[in-house]
Amino acid sequence: MRFERPVPLTEIASLIGATIIGNKNSAATGINEIHKVEEGDLVFVDHPKYYQKCIDSAATFIIINQPTDFPSHKALLLVEQPFEAYQKIVQHFRPFMPSMKNVSDSAIIGEQTVIMPGAYVGNHVTIGNNCIIYPNVVIMDHCIIGDNCIIQAGTIIGSDAFYYNKKTNRPVHYKKMLSCGRVVIENDVEIGAGCTIDRGVSGDTLIGAGTKMDNLVHIGHDTVVGKNCLFAAQVGIAGATTLEDNVILWGQVGVSKTLTIGAGAEVYAQSGVPASLDGGKKYFGSPVQEAAVKMKEIVWIKRIPELWKKVTGE
Amino acid sequence: MRFERPVPLTEIASLIGATIIGNKNSAATGINEIHKVEEGDLVFVDHPKYYQKCIDSAATFIIINQPTDFPSHKALLLVEQPFEAYQKIVQHFRPFMPSMKNVSDSAIIGEQTVIMPGAYVGNHVTIGNNCIIYPNVVIMDHCIIGDNCIIQAGTIIGSDAFYYNKKTNRPVHYKKMLSCGRVVIENDVEIGAGCTIDRGVSGDTLIGAGTKMDNLVHIGHDTVVGKNCLFAAQVGIAGATTLEDNVILWGQVGVSKTLTIGAGAEVYAQSGVPASLDGGKKYFGSPVQEAAVKMKEIVWIKRIPELWKKVTGE
Amino acid sequence: MRFERPVPLTEIASLIGATIIGNKNSAATGINEIHKVEEGDLVFVDHPKYYQKCIDSAATFIIINQPTDFPSHKALLLVEQPFEAYQKIVQHFRPFMPSMKNVSDSAIIGEQTVIMPGAYVGNHVTIGNNCIIYPNVVIMDHCIIGDNCIIQAGTIIGSDAFYYNKKTNRPVHYKKMLSCGRVVIENDVEIGAGCTIDRGVSGDTLIGAGTKMDNLVHIGHDTVVGKNCLFAAQVGIAGATTLEDNVILWGQVGVSKTLTIGAGAEVYAQSGVPASLDGGKKYFGSPVQEAAVKMKEIVWIKRIPELWKKVTGE
Repeated sequence: MRFERPVPLTEIASLIGATIIGNKNSAATGINEIHKVEEGDLVFVDHPKYYQKCIDSAATFIIINQPTDFPSHKALLLVEQPFEAYQKIVQHFRPFMPSMKNVSDSAIIGEQTVIMPGAYVGNHVTIGNNCIIYPNVVIMDHCIIGDNCIIQAGTIIGSDAFYYNKKTNRPVHYKKMLSCGRVVIENDVEIGAGCTIDRGVSGDTLIGAGTKMDNLVHIGHDTVVGKNCLFAAQVGIAGATTLEDNVILWGQVGVSKTLTIGAGAEVYAQSGVPASLDGGKKYFGSPVQEAAVKMKEIVWIKRIPELWKKVTGE
Repeated sequence: MRFERPVPLTEIASLIGATIIGNKNSAATGINEIHKVEEGDLVFVDHPKYYQKCIDSAATFIIINQPTDFPSHKALLLVEQPFEAYQKIVQHFRPFMPSMKNVSDSAIIGEQTVIMPGAYVGNHVTIGNNCIIYPNVVIMDHCIIGDNCIIQAGTIIGSDAFYYNKKTNRPVHYKKMLSCGRVVIENDVEIGAGCTIDRGVSGDTLIGAGTKMDNLVHIGHDTVVGKNCLFAAQVGIAGATTLEDNVILWGQVGVSKTLTIGAGAEVYAQSGVPASLDGGKKYFGSPVQEAAVKMKEIVWIKRIPELWKKVTGE
Repeated sequence: MRFERPVPLTEIASLIGATIIGNKNSAATGINEIHKVEEGDLVFVDHPKYYQKCIDSAATFIIINQPTDFPSHKALLLVEQPFEAYQKIVQHFRPFMPSMKNVSDSAIIGEQTVIMPGAYVGNHVTIGNNCIIYPNVVIMDHCIIGDNCIIQAGTIIGSDAFYYNKKTNRPVHYKKMLSCGRVVIENDVEIGAGCTIDRGVSGDTLIGAGTKMDNLVHIGHDTVVGKNCLFAAQVGIAGATTLEDNVILWGQVGVSKTLTIGAGAEVYAQSGVPASLDGGKKYFGSPVQEAAVKMKEIVWIKRIPELWKKVTGE
């Protein structure tokens, strides 16, 4: 999330009750997760395991629960509970203020674009030229849609991430991590009917130009989809995963989180992808293997009775 | 289904054309299925295989197609077609009278709760305090939603059960069993976008407090979900199944009907659950096995070629 | 697609810039794909591999990119790019002119049929008697729904096909093939909540009388579903596939394109169907096998360790 203006670090510190360690006379430009932060951004970390990674990231300001060495051009914001500090920043700078109109007054709609009945277009949404937004589509706040896009009926763009902070005090329960990110859809994308595309938690979920999806596809938060990908019906992709250009996923494929599928990979129907895949190859199975390997394996399984007979004579 | 008032047995008998055997001077409090009936309720049975079970259940009044022994504090309602009698009772006491307003006048909406544009809230729905009902959500008649719940866009709460009576006269066809049950969602539940939760046929579908679901999840009729469960995207759970507390189902898991998954069980992505599972363990596969067993099996399969070579020398 | 009137061949030729070879004094009744064309129809073909099949089909007029022998009662429409010619015909004879009303003035709604709030009923839609169209259902232009049908909340009928023409000039990209077909739903059909049924590209997607579907089911373009079929939740069927009468697909089954499942076949949950199946049998697995064979295979896999021990002594 970009702030609308650079925010003085002292203002942030006051909001979250933090002690500033380092240069107090600077301003933050936004907040984001560690893989996406840029210079000037805030990031938060509450586990010593990730301290160094956060301090070494592009982020300039680190919300942290313990003093730690850091480069002189950065600053720490010391708080007891960094997660709660993050929640406060989101609530303050991007509060949930739902538009109660079908098309928000702050939405920008391009020329020749058709918004059909029952569609909802939230605050600060931008839709390009020559798009068709079919009936009962929902596009939540701050999402961006390029030119020549088709969003078929009933699809939801910009739902909140499935992302919770596990609280292990009894009973175990889950606290929602507030989403403040967006969905950004490039030009010439078509999304089928009944799909759901979650927005980034603090970054963007991105759908690359020319990508086409069939119906009932799910795309998780912060996932980055390349250009000219094809996803058949009922594909599901978890959060923070990267699909490079020209990836093809056939029907009901499931892809796990935070992995990468290389350019031009093709995954056959109903496969399950638990880890990164090289580009340019074909895959099948749950868990997935290279398709040729999986096909041979299927043949080998059919030979077990023959092998049994060879060994036992029965 | 509870009746709005205790209904004299003679009134029921007259409605369905039944002969009362036993105490005529009593009143029924509702109708339910055998696993959920309480004292004072009606239940129906049309197959001798289930006669005894129904008579022994908590139900006080049994709609049945043959005279059978029963305890003296109960009564039989003798009819030729118990299924048709059930349908008549539902049509009479809970007729389909759809609200044609977006939010029915008989709905009760709590304080600080936001109902966004395009959402539909049916008759006699109750929604607690501090909830967000996102655009184009549908909540059908009689459903109950607790406090601090979030229902993301396009989700359907209270659709009818996928439940039909097979008619074997030619051609084979299916007659819809009318639903009169509800969906009851406890406090602090979040349901993702594009989900569908069917109401109970005559009982309740229940979602326990603190449970969180991702997008495009399907929950069948009369299913009971415990507290603080997590269901990832595209999970599907069939009807009348019980998930105890703290169950985790990862993406695209399918769960069959009328089974139980024990507390704290975790089922990995794309697994299929055909029968009950013990709590506290991890599972994988379709059909599912304990995850460690399944992982070993995957390794064993890869050793078939080596085994073949040992045996045949090729 | 039927034209509203027979269209002189000269008018078509002028629209698409074609040279007519053969009888110029005739008129076309419609355009369709090769498996569905009837006498009087247009068909298009751009690959020599399919020339003969198109010329031998029931179509009377063949849009083609090379002169080829043909029977004297037919005619060729010679163009450089038959695909582009098809697109022009669709845009001309069935242009996208979306109704901006919830229920189009040109829709025909039968007696006793209830259209609930938020539902969208497009141009030239016909809905029979005694149907319930639940809230936020979308029925796109030209679709036909029979009598006594129930369409549960949030379902989309008549979304466009997932059908693209691959352009191999760099970068590889996909051009949408325009849909002009319909969804035709016969009597006594029930479609669950959150389903998506694509219309035919140029023909019809057909759902046979008495068929019942659970929630979140996807049906691809031009697929033909027989009578009295049952599809459980989250089933997905790709395009141009045929399911004969009384087929049962359990939860999360996936079916590939352009195949046939014979009458009375039953496919167990989570199975994947890559090729045609005989009727009257039970199937399981991904890829699917006869259920009894698959069950034995599962047992054989469990015997690999025992076999290993027999062979190696370890």
